[in-house]
Amino acid sequence: MSPKITTELLKQLRQVMKSPKYVQEPVQAYIVPSGDAHQSEYIAPCDCRRAFISGFDGSAGTAIVTEQHAAMWTDGRYFLQAAHQMDNNWTLMKMGLKDTPTQEDWLVSVLPEGSKVGVDPFIIPADQWKRMSKALRSAGHDLVPVKENLIDTIWTDCPQRPCKPLITLDLSYTGVSWRDKIVALRSKMAERKVLWFVVTALDEVAWLFNLRGSDVEYNPVFFAYAVIGMNTIRLFIDGDRMTDPAVREHLQLDSTLDPEFKIQVMPYGSILSELQAVGAGLSPKEKVWLSDKASYALTEAIPKAYRYLTPYTPICIAKAVKNASETEGMRRAHIKDAVALCELFNWLEKEVVPKGTVTEIIAADKAEEFRSQQKDFVELSFATISSTGPNGAIIHYKPVPETNRTLSVNEIYLLDSGAQYKDGTTDVTRTMHFGTPSAYEKECFTYVLKGHIAVSAAIFPNGTKGHLLDSFARSALWDCGLDYLHGTGHGVGSFLNVHEGPCGISYKTFADEPLEAGMIVSDEPGYYEDGSFGIRIENVVLVIPAETKYNFKNRGSLTFEPLTLVPIQTKMIDVNLLTQKERNWVNDYHQKCREVIGAELERQGRHEALRWLIQETEPLIRVQ
Amino acid sequence: MSPKITTELLKQLRQVMKSPKYVQEPVQAYIVPSGDAHQSEYIAPCDCRRAFISGFDGSAGTAIVTEQHAAMWTDGRYFLQAAHQMDNNWTLMKMGLKDTPTQEDWLVSVLPEGSKVGVDPFIIPADQWKRMSKALRSAGHDLVPVKENLIDTIWTDCPQRPCKPLITLDLSYTGVSWRDKIVALRSKMAERKVLWFVVTALDEVAWLFNLRGSDVEYNPVFFAYAVIGMNTIRLFIDGDRMTDPAVREHLQLDSTLDPEFKIQVMPYGSILSELQAVGAGLSPKEKVWLSDKASYALTEAIPKAYRYLTPYTPICIAKAVKNASETEGMRRAHIKDAVALCELFNWLEKEVVPKGTVTEIIAADKAEEFRSQQKDFVELSFATISSTGPNGAIIHYKPVPETNRTLSVNEIYLLDSGAQYKDGTTDVTRTMHFGTPSAYEKECFTYVLKGHIAVSAAIFPNGTKGHLLDSFARSALWDCGLDYLHGTGHGVGSFLNVHEGPCGISYKTFADEPLEAGMIVSDEPGYYEDGSFGIRIENVVLVIPAETKYNFKNRGSLTFEPLTLVPIQTKMIDVNLLTQKERNWVNDYHQKCREVIGAELERQGRHEALRWLIQETEPLIRVQ
Repeated sequence: MSPKITTELLKQLRQVMKSPKYVQEPVQAYIVPSGDAHQSEYIAPCDCRRAFISGFDGSAGTAIVTEQHAAMWTDGRYFLQAAHQMDNNWTLMKMGLKDTPTQEDWLVSVLPEGSKVGVDPFIIPADQWKRMSKALRSAGHDLVPVKENLIDTIWTDCPQRPCKPLITLDLSYTGVSWRDKIVALRSKMAERKVLWFVVTALDEVAWLFNLRGSDVEYNPVFFAYAVIGMNTIRLFIDGDRMTDPAVREHLQLDSTLDPEFKIQVMPYGSILSELQAVGAGLSPKEKVWLSDKASYALTEAIPKAYRYLTPYTPICIAKAVKNASETEGMRRAHIKDAVALCELFNWLEKEVVPKGTVTEIIAADKAEEFRSQQKDFVELSFATISSTGPNGAIIHYKPVPETNRTLSVNEIYLLDSGAQYKDGTTDVTRTMHFGTPSAYEKECFTYVLKGHIAVSAAIFPNGTKGHLLDSFARSALWDCGLDYLHGTGHGVGSFLNVHEGPCGISYKTFADEPLEAGMIVSDEPGYYEDGSFGIRIENVVLVIPAETKYNFKNRGSLTFEPLTLVPIQTKMIDVNLLTQKERNWVNDYHQKCREVIGAELERQGRHEALRWLIQETEPLIRVQ
Repeated sequence: MSPKITTELLKQLRQVMKSPKYVQEPVQAYIVPSGDAHQSEYIAPCDCRRAFISGFDGSAGTAIVTEQHAAMWTDGRYFLQAAHQMDNNWTLMKMGLKDTPTQEDWLVSVLPEGSKVGVDPFIIPADQWKRMSKALRSAGHDLVPVKENLIDTIWTDCPQRPCKPLITLDLSYTGVSWRDKIVALRSKMAERKVLWFVVTALDEVAWLFNLRGSDVEYNPVFFAYAVIGMNTIRLFIDGDRMTDPAVREHLQLDSTLDPEFKIQVMPYGSILSELQAVGAGLSPKEKVWLSDKASYALTEAIPKAYRYLTPYTPICIAKAVKNASETEGMRRAHIKDAVALCELFNWLEKEVVPKGTVTEIIAADKAEEFRSQQKDFVELSFATISSTGPNGAIIHYKPVPETNRTLSVNEIYLLDSGAQYKDGTTDVTRTMHFGTPSAYEKECFTYVLKGHIAVSAAIFPNGTKGHLLDSFARSALWDCGLDYLHGTGHGVGSFLNVHEGPCGISYKTFADEPLEAGMIVSDEPGYYEDGSFGIRIENVVLVIPAETKYNFKNRGSLTFEPLTLVPIQTKMIDVNLLTQKERNWVNDYHQKCREVIGAELERQGRHEALRWLIQETEPLIRVQ
């Protein structure tokens, strides 16, 4: 990896920072955040502005360029990568280290008195704007919105914003029509006494209209906004995507509908002016509902007194609770995904053990190949983490030619991968050894497994927040003085983003919404030994009602059902460290894998993989 | 309980709300919060203004009186009590119920346009002022500080503010001299670049100067403030308490000291003007450190740009980590406390079983009597919860003649009690049956015990926050569909407040400070069956280093050591529900009770109680 040479680019940027063509007054600093206008986790190439200006293309980072300096804030996952990718025009600001200044403090320390700091108001979320603006103002500076994105003005070969065809999802996938979703949304709006709701997150637009796209890699979404009134629906979307007859039919654009379900299609770029018109027409007590993560530009379009901001939108919460059709779709997707992985692991055992020719990249490609053979496969749900030996200890590893390692009988192999199928989204991690694991490796694996089971088998009252379950996953590791430095689980979309709110299982958050039946999260404790190996065991699990003796005085009991049905390598388990209950859990889980995935492998005529499955799901027997 | 008749009082209050003698402009509403000027949990009789105006004397509640209305906000613990104690001038606002408006929303709904809402700026914490002021302002009203407390103007027989003699604590109790505490505080101030620190919480003043008082029941504190500069110490305290030669000697008031340790004693009431003088004399970049819970009045004395506010003060954090002398004192206090409880329980078994003449009040008094026989006993640390049968299910129960029940062989008895000794503070709950418990009662007790053990024996990495341990206490209950609706533990002071921050074990908080060795918290899971019984098992436990196999990559391991050493009634345990590890825990715990408390009972010649202890600490044997 050689760094990107940015001297010329920075010179150009500093020129436009002073150019009356783009800024009313010169700005002494310009902030380039990671995100897009929808605060997406995964972004399109045209939105990779921070990577363009700096060379650093990790998933998290904020660049700030002043007349004299260029600085990049990123977190511990990316210190090494950022240092490699950036030239020495850039200063790396290591977030999380004690002596690293915040962006605000740094700006205050380097800016001349009374400076203006510019930022694209579409890219910065309103809550961040507020915090930064306050800090700068109290030091005598001003945060100012720069309407035209200054990176775009110098990015001559900037890729086009993607505008790919849409996929319509019928009731058999979604369970609820978009009209009924609008009705439910309007009833939530009426409850909170708001007249308008602005949909800004891409997965929320996709979910609401039962449409999917492929504008962003891994996330089946498309660039759009929507503004829902009590009697109007406005969809802001570009291109000729509305000329597709299937889409027109799906959205009933040509039918004579009740006027309150008539969708007005408008250009993507007109959202701001339309929203400003909405804002200008409000009477006292009329409110507009927005996410507090919506962009500063859209939030400002509504006068402050009329805004109703919440951390989670009603769509975000409704989307998290999967209905019967979505749950059944997720089950089907996970069965197909398990078939692909049984094929892969069977193939790996045949290739790795005798030949030693499989690299991390080859294994990842092979996993994709097997998945793509399954019905309704669309794409991967994230970049495959295929890592062996020391690479496994890098939690967000993705194999590239420079780091690519060959799988062997001497190292632990960790595969964290998933796919988008038209009926559901998968995300599964398995950790395997193709030779003989050491006693220490087995010990660590077994503690991680105990944590995985503790969460998966946990029973808890209805309304419990996921973060309260996080330490269940750590208890067995803690007893021996081991831990892992990431959360235990995230929400998973239904043929949507593999990471979605508002629920999860993590010590890091307190603002998650309570778990309820139908929610889907991952359960993925791990253990990482730097320079040596990584272990993670991940299933996607569905929140379901549990049967308990006393049922929490009718409050209701919940537990999890694993949707992922892929064998957990018994060779890695030290059976004597498991309790009877844990051994039963593993045996029951493997029995279910055998039955459900076995039947599907049989049906698909995949006999070798079936043999592998049978062999890998032999019951555990205590040997002591 | 008959309600207090408040018609005349409310009339008087409404008059002073308009009187130019007390208010610059008439106020249309007046807020009467629960607290005192130090935001104390326990308050002196002269500060019980909300109880005076309304009749409702629960520990939590806020009264608001307008021209037309009088309303009281309180939580579920007090709905019944408040309804009984208040006459029908008052509307009860049941907090936590969906349809109950917030104070702000209610005010906005009842006030005429452009109203003024008054509050005593010394009683309302700055953070609450900010929230309420913002909400009122956005609806066109104003929150205004009313300097003279309007309740005090009509409270003709208001008790005097207590001004009791002080107790000095020497190094053998405190481990660190007040001078060294000032040195440590100033070094924290230098780290944060602040020039002044304002001590507003009563227990922080007491801790800093190694003094104790008895101005407030149960909490050995005294009314005072302190302002610490880098070279000055100002103590604001009333009465002739500084004429006591022991206190003068302790504070070295008459010695020729280094000037930076010279204490200037000033009147309690002069804090505001002195702080305003400090505020007026600041140069740019000079900061004053205050708790963000300090009163609005004191916070406002410092211009906004010069304030440095934190949720926990450096004293709060230092106070939580007990040094060796404090820990040893706490151990001694808990041994004495256990002696008293062994005497009590032995006496109860002798009295309850054959005679049936012991009431909840008699038992509570007897507990106090036995405690008062112990060396250095000062007072109780909170109102004893002595409750039998259905009263045990009322979590904050305190027996009064109207509810007083007689202990019997047919009901579970729950005793939650504690004391202040000069060497430490205790808080212990035991749940007993003097006859034969039912299988269901034993089952519930055993789940609670399993939760108690799960926390007490937990091993976790250094720096873990207590709230992450909360679900360990619930897991066994959850498995059967049972739960309890309170936190699991609170910080405990060292001969100070029985409830102290900044650490604890609760699902309700996220802002607790990480646990570290030397911190002391309670471990008190429970189970409550409304109308039937209550179960709670509470020990005070000390955070200590743990030995683990891998020691978290040298981050360090922690666990708990019980300081409370009182037998847990084995009659209530269903041994077959315990694991081997849990049985060992109980047996080891009882062995330690026998050794440590047995030796002390022997030394004190309390042979009957010793026989009771021996009998109650017989090892558990699995019977299946």
